[in-house]
Amino acid sequence: MAGDGSDQRALQYEQTLKYGRYSEDFGEYTKEEAARLRESGQRRSVSQTLKPLENNKGRCAKCRFCTVRCLKFLISRVGEDWIFLILLGLLMALVSWVMDFGINSCLHALMWIYNSLDSYVFLQYLAWVIYPVVLICFSAGFVQILAPPAAGSGIPEMKAILRGVVMKEYLSLKTFVAKIIGLTTALGSGMPLGKEGPFVHLGGLCAAVLMRFMSLFGEIYENESRYIEMLAAACAVGVGSCFAAPIGGVLFSIEITSQFFSVRTYWRGIFAATIGAFIFRVLAVWNTDAETITALLRTSFRLDFPFGLQELPAFGALGIACGFGGALFVYLNGVIVRFIKKQKANNGFLMKKHLLYPALVTLLISTLTFPPGFGQFMAGKLNMMETMEALLDNRTWAKHDIAEEFEHMGHSEAWIHPQVNVFVTLGLFTFMKFWMSALATTMPVPYGSFMPVFVIGAGFGRLVGEGMATWFPDGIPTNGTSYPIVPGGYAAVGAAALSGAVSHSVSTAVIVFEMTGQITHILPIILAVILANIVAQSLSPSLYDSLIKIKKLPFLPELGWGHHEKYDIHVEDMMEREVQYIALNCSYRDLHNVLLTGHHNTVALVESAESMILLGSIELAQLQELLSLQLDRPRRLENIRERAVQDKKRLSVVSNDSSENSSHQASQEVSFQISTEDSSLSPTCPVPQKPLKPALKRPSVVERPTSPHDHSGIAFKNLYGTIPDTETLEEPPPNLKSFFGDDVDVEDDMTIREITEWEEKQLDEQVNFNNCKIDPAPFQLVERTSLHKTHTIFSVLGLDHAYVTSIGRLVGVVSVKELHKAIEGSVKVEGAKARPALASFRDKGKSSSKNEATDVHKLRDRLKSMQLPREHTPSE
Amino acid sequence: MAGDGSDQRALQYEQTLKYGRYSEDFGEYTKEEAARLRESGQRRSVSQTLKPLENNKGRCAKCRFCTVRCLKFLISRVGEDWIFLILLGLLMALVSWVMDFGINSCLHALMWIYNSLDSYVFLQYLAWVIYPVVLICFSAGFVQILAPPAAGSGIPEMKAILRGVVMKEYLSLKTFVAKIIGLTTALGSGMPLGKEGPFVHLGGLCAAVLMRFMSLFGEIYENESRYIEMLAAACAVGVGSCFAAPIGGVLFSIEITSQFFSVRTYWRGIFAATIGAFIFRVLAVWNTDAETITALLRTSFRLDFPFGLQELPAFGALGIACGFGGALFVYLNGVIVRFIKKQKANNGFLMKKHLLYPALVTLLISTLTFPPGFGQFMAGKLNMMETMEALLDNRTWAKHDIAEEFEHMGHSEAWIHPQVNVFVTLGLFTFMKFWMSALATTMPVPYGSFMPVFVIGAGFGRLVGEGMATWFPDGIPTNGTSYPIVPGGYAAVGAAALSGAVSHSVSTAVIVFEMTGQITHILPIILAVILANIVAQSLSPSLYDSLIKIKKLPFLPELGWGHHEKYDIHVEDMMEREVQYIALNCSYRDLHNVLLTGHHNTVALVESAESMILLGSIELAQLQELLSLQLDRPRRLENIRERAVQDKKRLSVVSNDSSENSSHQASQEVSFQISTEDSSLSPTCPVPQKPLKPALKRPSVVERPTSPHDHSGIAFKNLYGTIPDTETLEEPPPNLKSFFGDDVDVEDDMTIREITEWEEKQLDEQVNFNNCKIDPAPFQLVERTSLHKTHTIFSVLGLDHAYVTSIGRLVGVVSVKELHKAIEGSVKVEGAKARPALASFRDKGKSSSKNEATDVHKLRDRLKSMQLPREHTPSE
Repeated sequence: MAGDGSDQRALQYEQTLKYGRYSEDFGEYTKEEAARLRESGQRRSVSQTLKPLENNKGRCAKCRFCTVRCLKFLISRVGEDWIFLILLGLLMALVSWVMDFGINSCLHALMWIYNSLDSYVFLQYLAWVIYPVVLICFSAGFVQILAPPAAGSGIPEMKAILRGVVMKEYLSLKTFVAKIIGLTTALGSGMPLGKEGPFVHLGGLCAAVLMRFMSLFGEIYENESRYIEMLAAACAVGVGSCFAAPIGGVLFSIEITSQFFSVRTYWRGIFAATIGAFIFRVLAVWNTDAETITALLRTSFRLDFPFGLQELPAFGALGIACGFGGALFVYLNGVIVRFIKKQKANNGFLMKKHLLYPALVTLLISTLTFPPGFGQFMAGKLNMMETMEALLDNRTWAKHDIAEEFEHMGHSEAWIHPQVNVFVTLGLFTFMKFWMSALATTMPVPYGSFMPVFVIGAGFGRLVGEGMATWFPDGIPTNGTSYPIVPGGYAAVGAAALSGAVSHSVSTAVIVFEMTGQITHILPIILAVILANIVAQSLSPSLYDSLIKIKKLPFLPELGWGHHEKYDIHVEDMMEREVQYIALNCSYRDLHNVLLTGHHNTVALVESAESMILLGSIELAQLQELLSLQLDRPRRLENIRERAVQDKKRLSVVSNDSSENSSHQASQEVSFQISTEDSSLSPTCPVPQKPLKPALKRPSVVERPTSPHDHSGIAFKNLYGTIPDTETLEEPPPNLKSFFGDDVDVEDDMTIREITEWEEKQLDEQVNFNNCKIDPAPFQLVERTSLHKTHTIFSVLGLDHAYVTSIGRLVGVVSVKELHKAIEGSVKVEGAKARPALASFRDKGKSSSKNEATDVHKLRDRLKSMQLPREHTPSE
Repeated sequence: MAGDGSDQRALQYEQTLKYGRYSEDFGEYTKEEAARLRESGQRRSVSQTLKPLENNKGRCAKCRFCTVRCLKFLISRVGEDWIFLILLGLLMALVSWVMDFGINSCLHALMWIYNSLDSYVFLQYLAWVIYPVVLICFSAGFVQILAPPAAGSGIPEMKAILRGVVMKEYLSLKTFVAKIIGLTTALGSGMPLGKEGPFVHLGGLCAAVLMRFMSLFGEIYENESRYIEMLAAACAVGVGSCFAAPIGGVLFSIEITSQFFSVRTYWRGIFAATIGAFIFRVLAVWNTDAETITALLRTSFRLDFPFGLQELPAFGALGIACGFGGALFVYLNGVIVRFIKKQKANNGFLMKKHLLYPALVTLLISTLTFPPGFGQFMAGKLNMMETMEALLDNRTWAKHDIAEEFEHMGHSEAWIHPQVNVFVTLGLFTFMKFWMSALATTMPVPYGSFMPVFVIGAGFGRLVGEGMATWFPDGIPTNGTSYPIVPGGYAAVGAAALSGAVSHSVSTAVIVFEMTGQITHILPIILAVILANIVAQSLSPSLYDSLIKIKKLPFLPELGWGHHEKYDIHVEDMMEREVQYIALNCSYRDLHNVLLTGHHNTVALVESAESMILLGSIELAQLQELLSLQLDRPRRLENIRERAVQDKKRLSVVSNDSSENSSHQASQEVSFQISTEDSSLSPTCPVPQKPLKPALKRPSVVERPTSPHDHSGIAFKNLYGTIPDTETLEEPPPNLKSFFGDDVDVEDDMTIREITEWEEKQLDEQVNFNNCKIDPAPFQLVERTSLHKTHTIFSVLGLDHAYVTSIGRLVGVVSVKELHKAIEGSVKVEGAKARPALASFRDKGKSSSKNEATDVHKLRDRLKSMQLPREHTPSE
């Protein structure tokens, strides 16, 4: 039931241990290794208890030993989880704080250069433009060289990883370093990029690195489900320590990465995120950035009358508009990403030089934001945090039309232009930032799109708020008194709504509360976020899902709400009825055929083709190994030797029956070299075709000559990639010949035709599954399992496919692909089936129940034919 | 895979349709019914499209028809979900508001009486005491008469229902009404009871009632998973509309009712809870209770410097103390509840009169809170909301020692006593309320324990806060400046921490933010809540889990964190190896034996006792039916008739082979009356033993005479309860004789001995499973599935038990009971098994893999013996 991921990982893990031992079969080897580990573990525990008694000499060594033991004891008692989560929170807070420090230094340096070149506009322009171009190019180049997976936000990949897909390179130390440095330089450039997406990824990276470190001196609890749970908690820590928003961070990371989650994970996330947020803010206090622990973007809206009831329609309209805006943003971003991808595939002009595209984009954006130029109309001087602070300002800008009054307004000054209205600057800002952000978040640097969208939303909200304040200069009267309208509140609502619409989450509302430190606008914010989500979710996928689709990562779409026709789809409507299976009594030729046509990575094992009773599933890799063992060269050589011995024997005694026995023994023996099944398929092609490879080199993917009837080239490559000891070395390398020992003294004098004949004969033999790892309970569904339940099971357990059985018999298979189709509506339920109330799979219609009855009948008949009937029933 | 709940429900549903039709087999009947429904559905849809064309006369009827159609169209297009959630939010808000209105009226009436009797202290005392006693007694009596399930908080039951347990009476309209009226009167009495627990239940009730209503004019989508999802959302609405805290409500209800939840449910909850909270507050605005939409308990803490960093240790200590307090509260409450239960069981003095206990408790509590008496030292005059408002007060009470200054302080005045210190009143308040609340929440009225605990926590927090303010009169200096300490902040922290500790949830923090409308104290509150949870969770179960245990509801304990040894437990360590099964070729006697010893409600169906290949599972009820069909009276009568015919025939032709055939036909034919298997067990007991029952009456649970070797009386009772047509009527009632038609013209002239013999013969026949409903894919696990994965699967799918298979063979069964044991630590893993990294069930040790290989071998051998071997292998 576990994803194949765990196996791949386990294999990769063992692979690193395995090099240097070539004389043994892989399966045998792992078993021995496991036994050795077990034994050594027992021995170690024995020695641990004995050592303090026997070892009295080295006092210092004893002390150290005790310390290590105490530490281990502490970890095992207090709970590794707690310590891990505390360390994680601490580390992420440090990373976040150091990164903020770096980013602010970069931004301040730019402003310093800009301000010191006050009188030379052209030099100012050059500095304003070249500085970010250099930083972005450094970021892109650095990431490209050190760890390409660090580019982008990383949320789509984390989503896939939490679904059970194994993407090792996305969780490596290299990526961690590349992401931190790349992100700092990219954000230091002042482009409209955020740090929240990468922080989800960084959280995961940090957890993965930390877990590897912890496993050094704790016991190894690299349990798969714990790993995933910890990664999920780590994502929450990332967001939490980035915005100092523990609760919002946890909820946001849950919403964007999971479809199901456990309360346990939620608690873990809250705990670690609180520590992260706490340390992050404490560092700010110690650095005297802040006086005490307060919110990142503290606002001071009225507490007694935050908003009037009459303003709610305006908030609602703002939410709906943000919903459309969010969908548009996702669409725009998708179009650009697809265009870039196409260019890359066609090796177009832009992609010839890797750094050209980001440089051009940066040039364009920084030119447009140049403060003395166009930037004066869109507050180009301010960086992202300053912009947010200004937009959440408590005062009403539209009322103070004269610029003089704005002298004490800090960042808000930037929005007041002597010539143009504040509406024009806000409108221009929103419009320009919109496409700039959509463009900037396609560069090959680490970036987040949450913060830019957040700022755009705030700008749009402020625009609406200022409009309302102009429309009702004295506020809307309620019960006689009237309170003026607070445009800052609209900015908060707009920010939450637009970021919610883009990410398809409602917890952006909580992030806004935690970032601003005020919860007064709770109802308008939630209302707007919900409306924005309704609009955006019905128009487009979320930004992350859109990227997942473009990157073709495996994912399971969510079930929409309200589409009640989905409740009528059942497994039988969507399952693939052509299941690949092998029977217990199949021949190696069947195995071979299955390997050629297999498109899942496991194949069903049934009792027999007649009964179709599902016994388990076998990985294709295992089958490949079985087949290889059957057809490998040592076995053939032995066969020759046996024949030679027999030939000798026949002279004295006429006996001829040891060959079959040897074939059974062979599978227990050494197996190093495998002749591919190609040789059996295309007997005309000469066997020793490729140059010899050094055996101790890490085996790479083997390029097989593609024969015309080979439909599964990719599948094979995967197999070879993951199971290195099935590598096709046509000849034993010279330095390994000695491994075969002295008994391989016969010459391989068989001709190619003889080999082919021998292999054909071998293929007709019945498969011996004795040494084959069988997954004894692959996940099973029934025909009447509903789409909802199937979706739940697939998303909770991270399944790739599940077999459909009916009274033990295999009748179909459902994979993520089929589920995909069903959810996206290409599966039609024939007619309007009026199901009885609370229909479950047990309430079958007439037809299916009849089928079942027949099936049971058939089974029993088979059984009867097999056994002696208990009582003879005379049939008329 | 669906819980047996859905089936029970489906059966109960069909049961209501079925009465009056007795001549047919149940299975046959349902099939016909389904076909009829399907047909009529099609016909209806045809007539709907035709009607507008043909029907031109009745304009009015046409209009109405159109309206209904439009409504249906709207519902089907806009999404039933949305409309449902909006209606649910609306309804819950109305209920909450009306209830608050009622409660406040009751409380004001008491205060009015109390104040108008100003000069007569004894009369005042009488009024103060009798008024709540009357109200509580009315509440307890009303609930007891109308719907006993309405008593208590309902959270434990909702938790069980969301786990898949069917408790119909907990979701009925009667319970809904009883809960509303009972809760209003109980809270109106002024006892320390809250409304949040019942509101979780009320939300579920409201959703269930609404769903039944919606299904009248929408299509019936009573899909089980949707039902559960909607109930989960409804619980969130309850809490949300009770505190006007949508986000906190959703999170709280998720934490206390689920272990796993989907993001979809979370969204639904947020949506509906927002509507609920919004309407709830809008109603308050319209009623001019509030000027605009603000928080329920609005506070006005400082925004710029809410708390100093140096105060954090105090907050932490407060959290830890609240953790211990929470555990103590749960323990105290549990002790009282167990005592009451014992009293009830022993029919003790207190329980003789149902209303005596609540009356005594109310008398005690109200006497102690009598304001001129002891109540003066614990602010007995204030009701719960007033107390909370006072405790969250922004000012420092300890500083104003002279009572005169408190004239303008509103409710805070009540805490200042001329003789005693404010610390004494706060301490007394906390202590007295602590045991009073623990006692009050055991009365048989609807109550919640959240709010009382919340108030106690606030009191304790205030006590600590006032202490801090006295200790540091000028505040703790930070960077030169110093800000005074805000005791109200401590009250908020204490409230969140204690309620979090009692309910084992961290989202009480969010509830506090939403209730107070301020999020300034986010870090201290979360910190304290987490610390309180760590302490409380390691000491005791949550209040709700404690009640679940006492009430013996089925529940699955949560996996603790940090207990890494749990990661080493696998299914093989905890499974029950003695599985009950029936083979495909078993006799009716085997069925009978299984029925006598079965303790799960399903039994495994295997291919044969030798192969043990799991084919499916059958409910005991189905087996019961099968057995009944085999042994029923009509069949015996037919047997007699057949024999008579044969006897006749034998005179002319000697043929004797139709009897077996008839036994096959019989199962397809009418089956009404069943003679219990008792008759076969105790042949000496006379058959027509019980009085005849009117057939058209709803059959009740049949009391069977308990024979000495009957171990499964309870199981049988359940069966009879759910499958009414297997009712044991020993004789056909006279008014039904005609149903058997004219062909039942033979007399039942068999003696008891003959009957016994006939039945013994019948029992030896092989079972015919043709008309039996088989669950074709019961949930399967493997021996190496980890405890974690098993727990996840059980909690997500709401399973009761799962079979353990190994390559198709049944090897064990795991039920909630075994899981329970394993989680609570009674399962020991032998030795320290050093598992390889990321061990999944596929990485088997040597021994198990050998076992497996043998198994496969065995299977193949069996197969070989069954079929012709493909190639003859000479065996030496």
